[in-house]
Amino acid sequence: MNKINWSKSEKAAARRAFDTAYKRECDAIIAKLKEMISKATEPEHIWQIHDYLDKQQKNINDKYDYRYSVLILIFARLLSEDWLKKSDLEGLGEDKIKKIEKLAKRVSGAEGS
Amino acid sequence: MNKINWSKSEKAAARRAFDTAYKRECDAIIAKLKEMISKATEPEHIWQIHDYLDKQQKNINDKYDYRYSVLILIFARLLSEDWLKKSDLEGLGEDKIKKIEKLAKRVSGAEGS
Repeated sequence: MNKINWSKSEKAAARRAFDTAYKRECDAIIAKLKEMISKATEPEHIWQIHDYLDKQQKNINDKYDYRYSVLILIFARLLSEDWLKKSDLEGLGEDKIKKIEKLAKRVSGAEGS
Repeated sequence: MNKINWSKSEKAAARRAFDTAYKRECDAIIAKLKEMISKATEPEHIWQIHDYLDKQQKNINDKYDYRYSVLILIFARLLSEDWLKKSDLEGLGEDKIKKIEKLAKRVSGAEGS
């Protein structure tokens, strides 16, 4: 991918979108934890929660990588996974939004194939 | 420690005591998890819960080692940590119970010092 320039206001918008997706995904993890613990009665349920959190930590660490060189790809992934809506990208240039949407469709297509 | 013989009925009693302590400690972990998760609102709380479970997994794996060669020591530790009561040791020979109680006091003393 060619080097992409980010204006100051785009950087602020990107940070907002990134933080929004992160908070949304963490809220979903918390909701899942509440569901799992409400049903926990046996020792094995503890280790299932631990395994779930191991996977989530890896998932979150891999995904939320705030570097401008990869941000378009990350936003595309977050859009395809529904952690971001198009309206969350407001403040980015139209060219960037188009790139993100195009890549998001490709990511979704690759997952579905 | 000299080799200790375990009769068939003592083995059954030991298994019961071991499983009782394990279930009790896991129930306490589940109760603590319920408390932590009920208060979880921010992403950082997820990783605090994950850290807590990492430590508990290590603690449980280190402690619950069902080998007859170390069982007296394990029961002493479980007694000193209140995961076992003296009545849970019913079915073991008086010599073993005395050894366990003596060691439990030593473990408690070492922790308190």
